[in-house]
Amino acid sequence: MRTALVIGTGLIGTSAALALASRGVRVHLADHDPEQARTAAALGAGTDTEPAGTVDLAVVAVPPAHVAATLAGAMRRGAARGYIDVASVKGGPRRDLEALGLDAAALASYIGTHPMSGREKSGPLAATADLFEGRPWVLTPGRDTDTEVLNLALELIAFCRAVPVVMDADAHDRAVALVSHMPHLVSNLVAARLEHAEESAVRLCGQGIRDVTRIAASEPAMWIDILSANPGPVADLLSDVAADLDETVRALRALQSADEDKRLGGAGGIQEVLRRGNAGQTRVPGKHGAAPTSYESVIVLIDDQPGQLARIFADAGRAGVNIEDVRIEHATGQQAGLVQLMVVPQSVPVLTAALRERGWAIRQ
Amino acid sequence: MRTALVIGTGLIGTSAALALASRGVRVHLADHDPEQARTAAALGAGTDTEPAGTVDLAVVAVPPAHVAATLAGAMRRGAARGYIDVASVKGGPRRDLEALGLDAAALASYIGTHPMSGREKSGPLAATADLFEGRPWVLTPGRDTDTEVLNLALELIAFCRAVPVVMDADAHDRAVALVSHMPHLVSNLVAARLEHAEESAVRLCGQGIRDVTRIAASEPAMWIDILSANPGPVADLLSDVAADLDETVRALRALQSADEDKRLGGAGGIQEVLRRGNAGQTRVPGKHGAAPTSYESVIVLIDDQPGQLARIFADAGRAGVNIEDVRIEHATGQQAGLVQLMVVPQSVPVLTAALRERGWAIRQ
Repeated sequence: MRTALVIGTGLIGTSAALALASRGVRVHLADHDPEQARTAAALGAGTDTEPAGTVDLAVVAVPPAHVAATLAGAMRRGAARGYIDVASVKGGPRRDLEALGLDAAALASYIGTHPMSGREKSGPLAATADLFEGRPWVLTPGRDTDTEVLNLALELIAFCRAVPVVMDADAHDRAVALVSHMPHLVSNLVAARLEHAEESAVRLCGQGIRDVTRIAASEPAMWIDILSANPGPVADLLSDVAADLDETVRALRALQSADEDKRLGGAGGIQEVLRRGNAGQTRVPGKHGAAPTSYESVIVLIDDQPGQLARIFADAGRAGVNIEDVRIEHATGQQAGLVQLMVVPQSVPVLTAALRERGWAIRQ
Repeated sequence: MRTALVIGTGLIGTSAALALASRGVRVHLADHDPEQARTAAALGAGTDTEPAGTVDLAVVAVPPAHVAATLAGAMRRGAARGYIDVASVKGGPRRDLEALGLDAAALASYIGTHPMSGREKSGPLAATADLFEGRPWVLTPGRDTDTEVLNLALELIAFCRAVPVVMDADAHDRAVALVSHMPHLVSNLVAARLEHAEESAVRLCGQGIRDVTRIAASEPAMWIDILSANPGPVADLLSDVAADLDETVRALRALQSADEDKRLGGAGGIQEVLRRGNAGQTRVPGKHGAAPTSYESVIVLIDDQPGQLARIFADAGRAGVNIEDVRIEHATGQQAGLVQLMVVPQSVPVLTAALRERGWAIRQ
């Protein structure tokens, strides 16, 4: 690939442009707001001039609702040999394109894609060439997609150091509904219950609810766009969750019954919810996309001085132990906390001994 | 306090006993399984012999269903001057005690308490004197509770370096339903949807669903006990969540409508869910139980070598920057990842410059 056109110079478009430009591709930048394209150009993502002729790849990085019209416009003026979009939903854009009456050759030159990357900030100033590094980048080619276009898309993904994953467009939309859109709404529904809760209750919050509600802090505007583009699969999944929830409420009410058989039935119902939750949780991929390795934790007490974490990590490094994950549990009302270091089981005694020797208080 | 009796030498009982023993209190240990009490004694938590006379404080640390009968037994034989239990639910034990026909003097000598501490392991071998450090420990005295007993309980909490919080028993049960039991079940319901999901979908999981489902990995047996002791408040909250969920499904279905007014109504409904989620999430206490400070993140690229984190933390410490929280985002299919360092906003330029100078790749 020697030339590219990036239409939509927000976070994703500008990040892809930066990656392409850093590999020597001549990138043209366009945005409905010329100021945004100028900003992206100033960051080194390319030029905001129009390409002289047909570029190799056009990357359409506009909000989901505008993808099909933007693609169709670019196709009609023959802007590129291949076209991709990067919207978070894939069934709709393809159907919209078909509805716009594009011919088979135009449709063959298009692949819907979705880089599974993001960050809390948006706009070109938040862009970075390494945004996609190591993250899945889904490709949804059709049966008639040109191989040449598939290879252009794969080249872009390689330049971005992302991991290509090929999926059917509708399967992709169901998958992101499952692993992202549904959990996002559920997290918000749990957090919503705290809005008017009493302060005395809220101060009992621990790490569990903190984790469950973390993504409820995300920017609502972006999420309305995402959810509006994928309402069907998300509604289907939420309905399934709602049915399970009703079942769970029934089981809890049965636990309050005077009838022992009903109570036993209720306990069985709750047990089944927890069993299924356990089973599902083990499927969440751990590090490196592999099946979850089971790590064990070493818990260290710290106070809140700068450098405490630094010293723990330095001491762990000196012992040759690789820390796989870290969790800091903050104490309530005190200048102290616990650091949970996740390591492979065989490292536990090594790390414990090494940290003890250096004077750390290790929780048994 | 000079003498104590701990009945039930699991994780919580043995941890409290270790804290008491370390402050010079003579602790007697009892368990329905004498082997457990012997183990706790061998760990230095006290003696498994019976006390010669009345002790100062009896700590009943048995499963919720056995609390009232165990307390009543100890009270009838005049085992202690004051009695507490440490079960995770507080309304039931008090009502059960009243139903057992204990007199006013006996009831005045009892306080239901709940240390908000726990860990994934159970049993005396998992116990540690610092289990409660910095965590809230709820006290639910009644109007007629002896002040002397309240002071004994406060002394125990001080020895455990926990933070005492006084609440009404039923308010406590509603609060833990809100901040712990309801989120626990919801996390399991989200995770349950992954049990039979296709592998291609599951591999798209990111940090969001990983956080939402983390607590679904907890031990089901313990959670059945907890939920069985608090079914009413949990069912009430889950019903509220279910009503919101139905509303959300309706809003998503409206987004699929051909009617533009309906679609606008649907978007408004989703917007409201996200707004409420945002508002509730900001109430989750951050570090030190304070109102959440807003931290900013500095993102560093690392590869998977031992010592990488150590060097980052050492470099941050050298720059005098206190890392408030850490999140490690693992890359899919690659030996690389991102480390997100949370710091107070004014530390961002200092930390960024310091890490850059030491050769780290910082995401802009």
